[in-house]
Amino acid sequence: MAAPAASVARPKVDLYSDTVTRPTAGMRKAIAEAEVGNEQAHEDPTANRLQEMVAELLGKPAAVFLPSGTMCNEIAYRVWCGQGDEIILDATGHALHFEAGGPAALAGAMTRTIAGRRGIFTGADVDAAIRPKTRHAPRQKLVSIENTANLGGGAVWPLETVKDVAAAAKRHGLRLHMDGARLLNAVVASGIPAATYAADCDSVWIDLSKGLGCPIGGVLAGSSDFIEEAWRFKHQFGGALRQSGIVAAAGVYALEHHVARLADDHARARRFAEGIAQVKGVQVAADEIETNMVYFTVDGTGMDAAAFSKRLMAEHGVRIGALGARLRAVTHLDVDDAGIAAAVAAVEAVAGA
Amino acid sequence: MAAPAASVARPKVDLYSDTVTRPTAGMRKAIAEAEVGNEQAHEDPTANRLQEMVAELLGKPAAVFLPSGTMCNEIAYRVWCGQGDEIILDATGHALHFEAGGPAALAGAMTRTIAGRRGIFTGADVDAAIRPKTRHAPRQKLVSIENTANLGGGAVWPLETVKDVAAAAKRHGLRLHMDGARLLNAVVASGIPAATYAADCDSVWIDLSKGLGCPIGGVLAGSSDFIEEAWRFKHQFGGALRQSGIVAAAGVYALEHHVARLADDHARARRFAEGIAQVKGVQVAADEIETNMVYFTVDGTGMDAAAFSKRLMAEHGVRIGALGARLRAVTHLDVDDAGIAAAVAAVEAVAGA
Amino acid sequence: MAAPAASVARPKVDLYSDTVTRPTAGMRKAIAEAEVGNEQAHEDPTANRLQEMVAELLGKPAAVFLPSGTMCNEIAYRVWCGQGDEIILDATGHALHFEAGGPAALAGAMTRTIAGRRGIFTGADVDAAIRPKTRHAPRQKLVSIENTANLGGGAVWPLETVKDVAAAAKRHGLRLHMDGARLLNAVVASGIPAATYAADCDSVWIDLSKGLGCPIGGVLAGSSDFIEEAWRFKHQFGGALRQSGIVAAAGVYALEHHVARLADDHARARRFAEGIAQVKGVQVAADEIETNMVYFTVDGTGMDAAAFSKRLMAEHGVRIGALGARLRAVTHLDVDDAGIAAAVAAVEAVAGA
Amino acid sequence: MAAPAASVARPKVDLYSDTVTRPTAGMRKAIAEAEVGNEQAHEDPTANRLQEMVAELLGKPAAVFLPSGTMCNEIAYRVWCGQGDEIILDATGHALHFEAGGPAALAGAMTRTIAGRRGIFTGADVDAAIRPKTRHAPRQKLVSIENTANLGGGAVWPLETVKDVAAAAKRHGLRLHMDGARLLNAVVASGIPAATYAADCDSVWIDLSKGLGCPIGGVLAGSSDFIEEAWRFKHQFGGALRQSGIVAAAGVYALEHHVARLADDHARARRFAEGIAQVKGVQVAADEIETNMVYFTVDGTGMDAAAFSKRLMAEHGVRIGALGARLRAVTHLDVDDAGIAAAVAAVEAVAGA
Repeated sequence: MAAPAASVARPKVDLYSDTVTRPTAGMRKAIAEAEVGNEQAHEDPTANRLQEMVAELLGKPAAVFLPSGTMCNEIAYRVWCGQGDEIILDATGHALHFEAGGPAALAGAMTRTIAGRRGIFTGADVDAAIRPKTRHAPRQKLVSIENTANLGGGAVWPLETVKDVAAAAKRHGLRLHMDGARLLNAVVASGIPAATYAADCDSVWIDLSKGLGCPIGGVLAGSSDFIEEAWRFKHQFGGALRQSGIVAAAGVYALEHHVARLADDHARARRFAEGIAQVKGVQVAADEIETNMVYFTVDGTGMDAAAFSKRLMAEHGVRIGALGARLRAVTHLDVDDAGIAAAVAAVEAVAGA
Repeated sequence: MAAPAASVARPKVDLYSDTVTRPTAGMRKAIAEAEVGNEQAHEDPTANRLQEMVAELLGKPAAVFLPSGTMCNEIAYRVWCGQGDEIILDATGHALHFEAGGPAALAGAMTRTIAGRRGIFTGADVDAAIRPKTRHAPRQKLVSIENTANLGGGAVWPLETVKDVAAAAKRHGLRLHMDGARLLNAVVASGIPAATYAADCDSVWIDLSKGLGCPIGGVLAGSSDFIEEAWRFKHQFGGALRQSGIVAAAGVYALEHHVARLADDHARARRFAEGIAQVKGVQVAADEIETNMVYFTVDGTGMDAAAFSKRLMAEHGVRIGALGARLRAVTHLDVDDAGIAAAVAAVEAVAGA
Repeated sequence: MAAPAASVARPKVDLYSDTVTRPTAGMRKAIAEAEVGNEQAHEDPTANRLQEMVAELLGKPAAVFLPSGTMCNEIAYRVWCGQGDEIILDATGHALHFEAGGPAALAGAMTRTIAGRRGIFTGADVDAAIRPKTRHAPRQKLVSIENTANLGGGAVWPLETVKDVAAAAKRHGLRLHMDGARLLNAVVASGIPAATYAADCDSVWIDLSKGLGCPIGGVLAGSSDFIEEAWRFKHQFGGALRQSGIVAAAGVYALEHHVARLADDHARARRFAEGIAQVKGVQVAADEIETNMVYFTVDGTGMDAAAFSKRLMAEHGVRIGALGARLRAVTHLDVDDAGIAAAVAAVEAVAGA
Repeated sequence: MAAPAASVARPKVDLYSDTVTRPTAGMRKAIAEAEVGNEQAHEDPTANRLQEMVAELLGKPAAVFLPSGTMCNEIAYRVWCGQGDEIILDATGHALHFEAGGPAALAGAMTRTIAGRRGIFTGADVDAAIRPKTRHAPRQKLVSIENTANLGGGAVWPLETVKDVAAAAKRHGLRLHMDGARLLNAVVASGIPAATYAADCDSVWIDLSKGLGCPIGGVLAGSSDFIEEAWRFKHQFGGALRQSGIVAAAGVYALEHHVARLADDHARARRFAEGIAQVKGVQVAADEIETNMVYFTVDGTGMDAAAFSKRLMAEHGVRIGALGARLRAVTHLDVDDAGIAAAVAAVEAVAGA
């Protein structure tokens, strides 16, 4: 999605993404008081603590703090794949569209896409994507899944589907990676513990700067060997920091304070969807809203998505981004009930115009 | 397609691929008598001549001899794309399946696939594959088409479709590359000159070791600047040879003697298709056969493609490869009318068993 | 240099590196109160401000905040070099030894080393490193210099030497990049403005987490086109952050408060060197100390560098790292006069034992 | 070395390189009559035979035919190294200067150079090049040696030096690769069997198109696993051919007819060196000539190497290339005793002018 212009006035209600949150007072306090050291020497107690918390949360032996979710994906791909190896993933996968070509550029990895349903696919889909093992075919190494599936509408992977895909991956000698940028949304929505989701994954990460509301970072987890390798690429990619406890402190704080509240984001997303479902010319599958995202179209309004988005902002100060033919509204901790009501009203007003 | 086992006895009729041809007596004579020199210093008169012939054939200022068609594709991708840039191509494209992951491994390029019809797509398909120009999307640089389309059934690109795609590429600031491994089949089948096909392409190549019957090589053509860059990568990839006139001589000979006769291959492919279309349990779209390839299925025979292929060879000495659920028969200069008759009979016999 | 063991007790005097500083109270306040937004959309006012400050400081049209100095180098290399291109740099260059192979891994770039004096080389050295422009030689694209030169002893590049190298680079059609991790040390030591040093460089960066005392980050500057390209790779490498103002605030604070005080670090380094120069068995070129680093050897003590380092820490709580045969002491804002005195005494004690 | 201009008339005596040889009548006959098949399916009996001959010659379980020596090096580097790993080699190594940046571009590998003597270094040199195993240093994986050493003057590695380096490599957990482009020259000069030289190497190759006089190709040998991986990259790099027996036949012929005669090349090189050693203004270490190369300088002639080279060709039809400040004359099967005499006379004439 194109970056909103810098000159745009700050929106009254910002449903652009859950990445736009600003740290709360409590989080800022945690940041300001963080005990820090050199993370590269494991001398930063706060970064150490965050890594331990996430490793435990995901049921993995080790974890490493990284500056972004993109780096979490790209380092995992680099660890699992050599040049010319292939990653199987859904055609909506984040790494295909929003990581500036990282899979090919950094890992030298080919991507083979599955046309899943709402970003979710099955073990049978993996079976169908398997190539004969010849010298001239890309060597398949990894299945990568995204839970929740962003372009799939914030869809939650059923646990049995993860297990089905994991079994298929195993059957074919492939590793399984989970892009868990919004795994905690899936956890809160489904009641399934993060470690249960992660159990069959060889690598998995959570983002701190999305629903959790931190300014920076993600944490990648896996076996000790995997994380040791990940550290090498953290250095190589320029993700090795110094006193990273300053930002890791936000992560620790968020894990302690911002997980359960994701349920509020989900309720608000549902409410927003139900609200705009009533609006003439707007199409939304309100009953499919599982987490904090609402994709909708405005086919009956005489406007395309981009035009509709522009008017929402210009006339009502409501920022909802356009992705191709769809609009996407994302709830997060900087959007409250009043904001949702205002956003619904804005959609109504623009559509009715 | 998996390599046939080395221990297999030589087939009586080999429809495995048009790459299996062995040089004719005339070609061997040309090879043996080739005037040669150091190609890297442009001192090999035969390599020079081949390059000039192909440049003229394709209407381009310059051309370079390379050891394989794969290297022609991969060098073109490397010239046009930087790391993280993206190539748009049909989901059946050769580079996706048979080049060991080269696009990602060598160019660092992402691939974005179009689900075309018989390997052919349109300008509108390209339009639909275009991404917004953001910093985090892969940067799109190249459209790559394959004429004829191998996995598309040896389908010939209509000239207007090439032009339509070329116009779309231009519209979006992309380059157009043509994998012309079997371009001369398209030329002979359609009556459209190679240079006319190539006119809108920024880079294009023909293979010598397919229908043309040479043992080794392809020739890549384009602007002088493009070919100069291609030479750098020819050196880097290990494709810079020495007295390459020895094999280039076969190419010169083939361009003089083996082009028009491709019509025979096409007629035989059609005859083979029509023959097996009569066989119960065999499915083939005989009226779609445009060049030298016949894909068919054997759904009503109680065998899968691999089993059917194995029996054709074991019981009748007819080699026809299985690619997934389909079998593929390819005609070429080492298969004559008797061979076709024998192959049809073999299919009949195995299917009827 | 190997990471110090995590289990090591915190040193009383830490001369391990200027990267070990912890944010001051004032810096923590700036961090806690930072006004933030989404940096990727240029909506983070603090990140924007930092970028503008550094661009102005370095006299360049544009700048971009990155998570580390390594990423500054690696992105610059990626922008300037294609796969197989070559970087000319001193044999002591940071990118060769401390970036986990990034130049080859990320840019696909070869490195050609010059054996300079204290990490500094001349235009004549560049001339001597130039290759003939052939198709099979790596294509030379970039000269990369490091000011101050870390492994060169914190040596300051004379301005005329930078200009001499820049002229040579220009003569041969090469770009010039300055790794300015400690450029402000050079500026304070020499009195030459940063922009004057940077004037002949196509790209240049400063580190925030070294002498400036910030927890995280560096800022890379260059032309607007260069920085636009750098942004693409910032996304690709996973260096695109969100509310980076939280850490950028430290950078703004440091530029306002921590530059002039580098002179104290330099004075203390000189004092430390003069102190240990009196110690029997210790070798140091005290009159060469220009900035905040003191390399020394302990050849006459009966210990090697690693053993000496270990005892300094174990017996005196003074951490000074061993790099091969040398020890390196680095002054910074967490080391005061008493620390220097204690460190000299510790060296004396260990050497005298 | 820059490619000689294409327009240059064919030299009377061509000492430019041993790559300029043209196939003999016997070799052309072998080529013309070669029994061939599809090498990728191991159905080419001549390619198979060549591979078996070289595997046996080098005492390795397996071997693979490749289009060039550069591809032999680059594939070995790719197999042994991941992105960011490091190769230790002499500063004169072929891969650094003549492979268009392949080590970085294809393997993503850093290079660490040793300043050896005549291209040869010792186990102690390897020890000195070893880095501490940290996360931020390039990971060292491979030592690469070149026997004979081209830029070292065609110097022959003493067997004990190979063993010394091999022991060092083993000590540090590194693989050992031998660029044996001219290994058979070393074998003939030293009387040491190729397999003895290769015994401690994990991968090793010989070139066919240098002293052996073939038009095209090299053969890379190693363990079965190594060669299986090499085949994947042969496909990826575009080095997988079809009826490669056509050129492999030249290799078989050369191994049967052109090995022992390398002694003649060596004798002629020595004679040439002794001849020009008498010429005023010419400097050559005639007693160091071990194989087929003679490097010399012309410091006392008032001309630089390039000018001297140009006049040799223009006035006498003797082609001897200039590499930087040196000239290099290489003997091979297209240069006889009369040619040597003519070349010495030409040097005399140009120098005396």
